[in-house]
Amino acid sequence: VVDATGGSEFAAIERIAARFPAPPGGELWIGDDAAVVRIGGADVVVAADALVSGVHFDLSVTTIADAGWKALAVNISDLAAMGCVATRALVTVSGPPETDIDGLYEGIAEASERFACPVVGGDLTNAPVLVVSVTVLGDGGVTPRPVRRAGAQPGDVVWVTGPLGAASAALHARRSHLSNARPVPRVAEGVAARELGATAMIDVSDGFGADLGHVLDASGVGFELEGLPVAEGATPEEALSGGDDYELVWCGPAGTADGFAVRGLRPPVRVGTIVADPGRRPLPSRGWSHRFGA
Amino acid sequence: VVDATGGSEFAAIERIAARFPAPPGGELWIGDDAAVVRIGGADVVVAADALVSGVHFDLSVTTIADAGWKALAVNISDLAAMGCVATRALVTVSGPPETDIDGLYEGIAEASERFACPVVGGDLTNAPVLVVSVTVLGDGGVTPRPVRRAGAQPGDVVWVTGPLGAASAALHARRSHLSNARPVPRVAEGVAARELGATAMIDVSDGFGADLGHVLDASGVGFELEGLPVAEGATPEEALSGGDDYELVWCGPAGTADGFAVRGLRPPVRVGTIVADPGRRPLPSRGWSHRFGA
Repeated sequence: VVDATGGSEFAAIERIAARFPAPPGGELWIGDDAAVVRIGGADVVVAADALVSGVHFDLSVTTIADAGWKALAVNISDLAAMGCVATRALVTVSGPPETDIDGLYEGIAEASERFACPVVGGDLTNAPVLVVSVTVLGDGGVTPRPVRRAGAQPGDVVWVTGPLGAASAALHARRSHLSNARPVPRVAEGVAARELGATAMIDVSDGFGADLGHVLDASGVGFELEGLPVAEGATPEEALSGGDDYELVWCGPAGTADGFAVRGLRPPVRVGTIVADPGRRPLPSRGWSHRFGA
Repeated sequence: VVDATGGSEFAAIERIAARFPAPPGGELWIGDDAAVVRIGGADVVVAADALVSGVHFDLSVTTIADAGWKALAVNISDLAAMGCVATRALVTVSGPPETDIDGLYEGIAEASERFACPVVGGDLTNAPVLVVSVTVLGDGGVTPRPVRRAGAQPGDVVWVTGPLGAASAALHARRSHLSNARPVPRVAEGVAARELGATAMIDVSDGFGADLGHVLDASGVGFELEGLPVAEGATPEEALSGGDDYELVWCGPAGTADGFAVRGLRPPVRVGTIVADPGRRPLPSRGWSHRFGA
């Protein structure tokens, strides 16, 4: 998420949330990876994110089909970060008349098929710049309940689904072979983490330090780092501060890795533990990278 | 909906729909005012539309709060056109750093409170132009079922909720006192039409002729015009071809007006009848306006 308000996105989001009533019991509104709402007697988990050409994707480096894939994938990742599965999507495309809508939808359809999340509606609209806004829906009535950002407890182990920093390294180097142009949302891993007792979860879109920081803020706890898995070709700094990785980070019991193995999933990597002192926490600063070695 | 593809929006939408599987029984996907999807055992009705600054609203004529109102209202209108009530919304805002997010959300919140449809999620993103994309959700498990565009039958009366052409007249004259800057979605009227046996329904966003044309196409029928209610200050041509009115048009039994009176709603206006011959239909052309007198 890039700031539309000159550096105060989170303050703006707090002001937005304050304009609406508190959610009724069992619902979860603004401020997590996805919302949970009650519709027609069911709990529905739903998220919406827009991708803007030149901001979230660069058509001089990736194809428009890659942009379409990414637009759907990052939203599926938001539901995965709740431990939920996106099953339906809506897409609004705003763009110049020369936009290659068919190429864009080729990538959307490929991600849709890969993750079993068909597009059921949306619209096409004229605009001076290409903006692809996606909404995904899924079943939020799962047991255990969808995993929020709040809920991390002192003593929880902090896990990550895989190495970090590849997307950032590709961006810095403009080495497209390293690019995360088609990020893979960790859907099965998110569901597994929820079922294995995750207390809090988020996906790495802004960067590990920033995103874990959201979890720590929401949970009122701190963090003791043990070490981060760094993607091949990336620096520790990129693993810590780079965004666009779409790996999942969650807090939970020590046995999570075994549970992943039982499910045939790649074992998660233990990166640290939750501590009670909310003042202890990683910051996505340069200085921090020294603590990882390299 | 304004074309992003240089004049072939409907062909583009057909190509998009062809990329995805056919919906399972009971679901309704691309091609109506809203989709109906089954999530967690419930039928959810959902629609998404984006509004673009300079295309769908003009900040030199209306306020940014009006734009926010309109962005939510036109989506609520899409669900009203199914005979359904939008109860939750997600909003993605993409815009320049100087965008008055608080002003935009003031209008969104006013529409949200007026129509009991709180914003539960979304995002803020940087972009060279302001694009507001809204998704609304509601209960689609209603009886009778949500009203599609297909379903109009020969002999059905065609009704409209109110006079047409005001928005178009305001646009042409740049007379802001006539402006439909804060369109009012006809929610109660849509529900009433569904409950009173509407066979097909749509809202007037593109213009009466074009929108009724979508119903005739989907239903494979024709139309015999009796007369259109023309908004004060508008011409018959504007009533026929102007968009942005957000009145509802539906096909159904002759007794609908009485049912509205019983509910305390403004009686709908009878504008014509459905006929079997699909070749008989109004076209949103200049020539057509002569048939209305003036």
